[in-house]
Amino acid sequence: MRALLLYRLDLSGSASVDESIHPVDPRTPIVRATDLGVNRGDGVFETAVVRHGRPQALDSHLTRLARSAGLLELPAPRRELWRTAVRRAASAVSVPGVLHAGELASIKFVMTRGDEIDRGAPTGWVLGFAGTDPTAVRAAGTRVVVLDRGYRHDVMQTSPWLLQGAKTLAYAVNEAALREATRRGADDVIFVSGDGFVLEGPRSTLIARLDGELVTPPSEFGVLPGTTQADVFDGLADLSVRTAALAREDLDRADALWLCSSTRGAVPVRELDGGERTMDHALTTRMNALLDARED
Amino acid sequence: MRALLLYRLDLSGSASVDESIHPVDPRTPIVRATDLGVNRGDGVFETAVVRHGRPQALDSHLTRLARSAGLLELPAPRRELWRTAVRRAASAVSVPGVLHAGELASIKFVMTRGDEIDRGAPTGWVLGFAGTDPTAVRAAGTRVVVLDRGYRHDVMQTSPWLLQGAKTLAYAVNEAALREATRRGADDVIFVSGDGFVLEGPRSTLIARLDGELVTPPSEFGVLPGTTQADVFDGLADLSVRTAALAREDLDRADALWLCSSTRGAVPVRELDGGERTMDHALTTRMNALLDARED
Repeated sequence: MRALLLYRLDLSGSASVDESIHPVDPRTPIVRATDLGVNRGDGVFETAVVRHGRPQALDSHLTRLARSAGLLELPAPRRELWRTAVRRAASAVSVPGVLHAGELASIKFVMTRGDEIDRGAPTGWVLGFAGTDPTAVRAAGTRVVVLDRGYRHDVMQTSPWLLQGAKTLAYAVNEAALREATRRGADDVIFVSGDGFVLEGPRSTLIARLDGELVTPPSEFGVLPGTTQADVFDGLADLSVRTAALAREDLDRADALWLCSSTRGAVPVRELDGGERTMDHALTTRMNALLDARED
Repeated sequence: MRALLLYRLDLSGSASVDESIHPVDPRTPIVRATDLGVNRGDGVFETAVVRHGRPQALDSHLTRLARSAGLLELPAPRRELWRTAVRRAASAVSVPGVLHAGELASIKFVMTRGDEIDRGAPTGWVLGFAGTDPTAVRAAGTRVVVLDRGYRHDVMQTSPWLLQGAKTLAYAVNEAALREATRRGADDVIFVSGDGFVLEGPRSTLIARLDGELVTPPSEFGVLPGTTQADVFDGLADLSVRTAALAREDLDRADALWLCSSTRGAVPVRELDGGERTMDHALTTRMNALLDARED
């Protein structure tokens, strides 16, 4: 991962969109020690991949950013400002010569609750970075372990303060789960609820093929509404797709599994808890072709 | 809350303790947009209150910082560096004229996993700040609601990647729980596990008096080992104190409840889920007298 560019945003709302976007060196510190983003993980974010010079699925990402902000009772993001800044960043990283061979650019955009002392406007920025082109992992697949997320499947309804379903900066548990996967000789994680329902990955949405249908768990279970999974479902109009509860056992019964995310698209699961899984390379290719072709 | 001073720490380990402590203006941004502290809440912290010019219970805080770092698989903190920096900050904020009337100084110290791009040393800082003197709340007591923490009481053993028991920067759920308390007309929260065991507050340790004994929940339940609660138990040698599981119903049965934290000491609960509770002002005063008298 390489940082390519950074825009600090003025979220006070007093300046025009153009005057609110401030390019800075990505190595320049822009967050205060008193910012709630770094003190409490108190903020929200999105990451959009850049293809054809544009941030893909930007409207879906902006909608989800606003949803996450709502769940955290943060001010509603100024949509036009974020849209402009992310698009500008995507254009800037798409200039020939910016990316090295084997890299793919993405734009991460972050809004925190702002300074704990000043209690003024939120803090915001847009980071352009180069990640690994996912072509290889889409073909090779990924090794996954199933880990307990600890919460019941219904805590989003019973206990909204647990912030399930919000894409927050408080991702330490996701990082720890990925370290646990590494320890077990795997690359990634599928979380299940404390009461045995399949949820999502720490950075991806699950699609399982069961009885000829593509199934993803419902957002009511506190999983993030997947922008990439949604576009896969939209694009496969000839197949049967649906949102439904999956039990832990359904993972074993499924004849194919995918983890979907903005930066990697649809990645097939080749190993689950150490057991080899079949991959449908033809359908994976079709999914990623439709994802990569998206214009916006 | 007012920021009083800020030291940025060089945690590369290559410099001497003195050369690793860099005073900066607290308003100067010191965290990069690519730091894992702000991107993932991936870091640990402690807060020590300053009395008699010294950070109280510093050894306990340093031990707990190292414990949290271990749970997150962060590098072990360089104890002598953190000790020196926190002590120096405590001295600096204890100079006459720094604090206003009704303020009490505390030192917060933070270590993140460092930069996501560079993957070098952790990022660290020490912040001196002025909070509200707790004398009033110790007398008036606090209004508390009981909220579900979502996890079973034993996840620290079954699912260590959930990081229960670590004092991390990923505190968005704690903040959301405190907002829920406000919404319900209260000031603070006592978390219970999904299976009905009493845990702790989002920023405090619980002590309940039951059948003449002072009881606090065990750290095996994923609660933070309370430095303040431990000193209260140590100081009340003539009373019966113990660590034991408490059920939700025990909160109703208890004839007194306290929330203990570094910055406020022992604060009695005056209302629980809207119902008035008796407070033992004499014992509260005794607890805080012994806490405030600690020399280090």
